[in-house]
Amino acid sequence: MRPKPFRPQAFDAGNGEGAYVRDQTSGLVWHRCHLRTLYADTDRSQVVYHSNYLRYFEFGRASLMRDAAYAYKEIEASGFVYPIIATALEYFRPLRYDDAMHIHTRPGTLERVKLQFDYVITHVPSGELVCTGFTRHCAVNAKGRPVGIDEKTLHLWAIFPQ
Amino acid sequence: MRPKPFRPQAFDAGNGEGAYVRDQTSGLVWHRCHLRTLYADTDRSQVVYHSNYLRYFEFGRASLMRDAAYAYKEIEASGFVYPIIATALEYFRPLRYDDAMHIHTRPGTLERVKLQFDYVITHVPSGELVCTGFTRHCAVNAKGRPVGIDEKTLHLWAIFPQ
Amino acid sequence: MRPKPFRPQAFDAGNGEGAYVRDQTSGLVWHRCHLRTLYADTDRSQVVYHSNYLRYFEFGRASLMRDAAYAYKEIEASGFVYPIIATALEYFRPLRYDDAMHIHTRPGTLERVKLQFDYVITHVPSGELVCTGFTRHCAVNAKGRPVGIDEKTLHLWAIFPQ
Amino acid sequence: MRPKPFRPQAFDAGNGEGAYVRDQTSGLVWHRCHLRTLYADTDRSQVVYHSNYLRYFEFGRASLMRDAAYAYKEIEASGFVYPIIATALEYFRPLRYDDAMHIHTRPGTLERVKLQFDYVITHVPSGELVCTGFTRHCAVNAKGRPVGIDEKTLHLWAIFPQ
Repeated sequence: MRPKPFRPQAFDAGNGEGAYVRDQTSGLVWHRCHLRTLYADTDRSQVVYHSNYLRYFEFGRASLMRDAAYAYKEIEASGFVYPIIATALEYFRPLRYDDAMHIHTRPGTLERVKLQFDYVITHVPSGELVCTGFTRHCAVNAKGRPVGIDEKTLHLWAIFPQ
Repeated sequence: MRPKPFRPQAFDAGNGEGAYVRDQTSGLVWHRCHLRTLYADTDRSQVVYHSNYLRYFEFGRASLMRDAAYAYKEIEASGFVYPIIATALEYFRPLRYDDAMHIHTRPGTLERVKLQFDYVITHVPSGELVCTGFTRHCAVNAKGRPVGIDEKTLHLWAIFPQ
Repeated sequence: MRPKPFRPQAFDAGNGEGAYVRDQTSGLVWHRCHLRTLYADTDRSQVVYHSNYLRYFEFGRASLMRDAAYAYKEIEASGFVYPIIATALEYFRPLRYDDAMHIHTRPGTLERVKLQFDYVITHVPSGELVCTGFTRHCAVNAKGRPVGIDEKTLHLWAIFPQ
Repeated sequence: MRPKPFRPQAFDAGNGEGAYVRDQTSGLVWHRCHLRTLYADTDRSQVVYHSNYLRYFEFGRASLMRDAAYAYKEIEASGFVYPIIATALEYFRPLRYDDAMHIHTRPGTLERVKLQFDYVITHVPSGELVCTGFTRHCAVNAKGRPVGIDEKTLHLWAIFPQ
């Protein structure tokens, strides 16, 4: 099924960075960063191997966290880890070698011990939708036991532009 | 939510290989192969990085196809490609360095131009469920246009043990 | 053996980009780009897995080519491929998760059908040497036969700042 | 330069495993294991991306250690780590998707705090040389300080078939 187009519009998050866009289709605000595919990412069918999009998601998630409030490294330094407990991706259009992409990331659902990030990757020259997906995380302490979401992460959800 | 346990029972597929098991919980038959994690697969939290399970899924899918009927390479040689259009994974228990795993794979839903493989990975020593997931593929010809599933692949679905 | 320190000094390549530095120890000019490690790059010993530095080298090489003259993609589009026939790396200090690095790349020896790129990676906050290495490439045509270096690549060597 | 051919001959290591061969060209004994390339390993030039051979080397090294004496995991459990301080590879013939390879590994030079593993990868159907290389390691304790090679590893060198 054809997905609805992603129609990003520059959005002023008030921090002068301009790293946010509002999708005119859904009305949602997304953090946006830029990346280019490497030869290492492609496979013999000439396109990016499907698992590498999870790497791009990690890049988007880390960029969002650093731009918004803190680096994920600081979360782990304070004793919390957020392992991924589920993920899903839908692919609409392949990326090829040296293609520029925009990775859009936003904080999704937030529960007591779980949270989700949502992602949209688009092809820069055409603006076409490449893939969408999410990663679902569980907050655990240093011993691997589920715990409530930490304060810093709650703050990230609170301040993310609407 | 706790998943139901995966309780594999040796299953004689009639070809002397013994590479199939029946899960007593669901009654379904799965192809099974064996693999060990590498240092390269782990990340700094000491467990396998989440995207590497898609690599293990590829290993399971390729083993199933080779054991059952033909190598995927032969499919591509005959002009068909099966790019992944969607995937999803749920993680229940991490794998660590040098852990042995069983990768269980089975042909899932089959439509006119789409098909799905399902996967269950278990930790060999404990038998515990590590992750489950699927990869959804679309049949396309050399020009990238969706086409009906090829004969060899249909045959694979037809002969997979019930 | 302790390597000599890499002491980069800003260098004006005359194109306003400032992406070049001169190492005061050797006197050589290097192209420089910036990258950060991902969680995906680390292994269970908490540092970047050794093979990922080849990925960083590719990033450096691609950046140099794009900044200097053309994208490697254009070389392949004109019928030349430059597969790697040898590589070597020496590691002096590990990178950890979320570490910022500078990748320094320069065109090395140039022969009739072979060429080499040299690399130096440093840790941004400390300036310490992380690793050095090279990739050696052979020019081949679309049929995989060794051929003379193409004009664009020769030009890259000719214009690289001294 | 054309490398000398690798001419393996079955070798009885006296432990009934048969996982060793003697190269008739050099007279050296090598541990041998078998692996197949994945789609994930290839790049858009249709062959295995060069950094993945380091992953194959790790597979060979881990197989040798497990078959010969102990798993590397046990070494780390006893407080020693063997990070790679240098590596080099030469590529002679590419591997393609689904190609079967033999990975030959042997303990190389052994010094007070450093040791080296040597590798030869061949293409199974043709026996042709794919690549050769080495990884050089330094023994360090849990605090990252260089220490003498541990007893288990010295034993591995002592018992490796000549």
